Amino acid sequence: MIDESLLKPGERFDDLERNGYHIIQNPEKFCFGMDAVLLSGFVRIKPGDKVLDMCTGTGIIPLLLAAKTQAGHIYAMEIQPESADMAQRSVKVNRLEDKITVEEGDVRTAASRYGKNSMDAVTCNPPYMPFGKGLVNPESAKAIARHEVLCTLEQVCSQAAAVLREGGRLFMVHRPGRLSEIILNLSDNRLEPKRIKFVQPFADKKPNMVLIEAVKGGGRELIVEEPVIVFKEKGVYSDEIRTVYGY
Amino acid sequence: MIDESLLKPGERFDDLERNGYHIIQNPEKFCFGMDAVLLSGFVRIKPGDKVLDMCTGTGIIPLLLAAKTQAGHIYAMEIQPESADMAQRSVKVNRLEDKITVEEGDVRTAASRYGKNSMDAVTCNPPYMPFGKGLVNPESAKAIARHEVLCTLEQVCSQAAAVLREGGRLFMVHRPGRLSEIILNLSDNRLEPKRIKFVQPFADKKPNMVLIEAVKGGGRELIVEEPVIVFKEKGVYSDEIRTVYGY
Repeated sequence: MIDESLLKPGERFDDLERNGYHIIQNPEKFCFGMDAVLLSGFVRIKPGDKVLDMCTGTGIIPLLLAAKTQAGHIYAMEIQPESADMAQRSVKVNRLEDKITVEEGDVRTAASRYGKNSMDAVTCNPPYMPFGKGLVNPESAKAIARHEVLCTLEQVCSQAAAVLREGGRLFMVHRPGRLSEIILNLSDNRLEPKRIKFVQPFADKKPNMVLIEAVKGGGRELIVEEPVIVFKEKGVYSDEIRTVYGY
Repeated sequence: MIDESLLKPGERFDDLERNGYHIIQNPEKFCFGMDAVLLSGFVRIKPGDKVLDMCTGTGIIPLLLAAKTQAGHIYAMEIQPESADMAQRSVKVNRLEDKITVEEGDVRTAASRYGKNSMDAVTCNPPYMPFGKGLVNPESAKAIARHEVLCTLEQVCSQAAAVLREGGRLFMVHRPGRLSEIILNLSDNRLEPKRIKFVQPFADKKPNMVLIEAVKGGGRELIVEEPVIVFKEKGVYSDEIRTVYGY
């Protein structure tokens, strides 16, 4: 039984179709997208791994990781109080308090909060858009989730590098158009790209997302994997999207 | 009529099926691959552009560019005397002396030979493999064409940046596994990646080549294009390969 008393006005439960888990979302504010689901299918978490999810929003990544992996403990940070509160209530409704800890907080303080070299893995679905680009209202929840108002790619990379142990892994989803910036920022922070996977809406269309795995202090050995194709024809998800990513 | 007297022992003419052009190759030594053809389809040369092809081998890229573009003049450098000589004879057999100048020479001397800021475009199909990796005989023609024995990615990028005018473009084909090194080296030389296109043998296979366009002194604006798919089914080239690349 889901505890309806955990919902606030405008919110609803969405079924994640994984382990019976649900997530609290407010469809008028910000709902998770396919990028978060794809990232959770891309990550490789070992049993017992200590994981930090930066920019967790309403907590979709930690919930999916709790369902799909045997992570030891998953910490999650979110700067927007309302989203962090929703994520905390989603943890409660799924009785995952022993597995997931969501904290309201600024990604730029991750290393001082969790300690240097403390994490086996970091996941991040950061704001994609540079500050200023097409930005109308920088104080809105959507703007903060989508634009680099409160955290930049550079800050995500440097904080991820700081909290990761040597050999620990960063998994990130971002826009292909920012790939060179991503690689430069990873390199500046001794994060070596190991695996890159593009996501294309169709087999013959250009990618609109990129998934990246980087290893702290890793050697040079990059694999660009076969792309994820989302639709096999208009309106029909590909087999991979249905089986691997559970759509 | 092709002048057979231009052939040396072991060599043959191969028909490029473009403008009636032929190339002299020695099948026991080194023949051009699909990478060169794909690169020639990827480049964007404006009418009158002054172009330098580094690591030209037997001159496949300048021949294809002469056929496909309205380049002003195409210079080509090749360090191996035998390949440079074949390329020079291929220019002669196609009567392209007014359009293409092949010189035997070390890519590391490109800037001093042609002058800084002298080129509108640089093309390069460099050795893909780092020096040492799987290298048996570093003096063989094949080893020099495939391994970074006599020129590294770093040298290609720095020399390309030096000979290009501000706003000039570098077009390169390489292995996806070296993408982060490529981006770092481009960045070190003020070459901004603008366009990246992966080449996949099949739609569901990982890419085995990557095509890159970078602009000297360009702003940040990268597009990862839809991939080139080589085969639509086993043994059958895709329509794109047949129409755009002329296979």
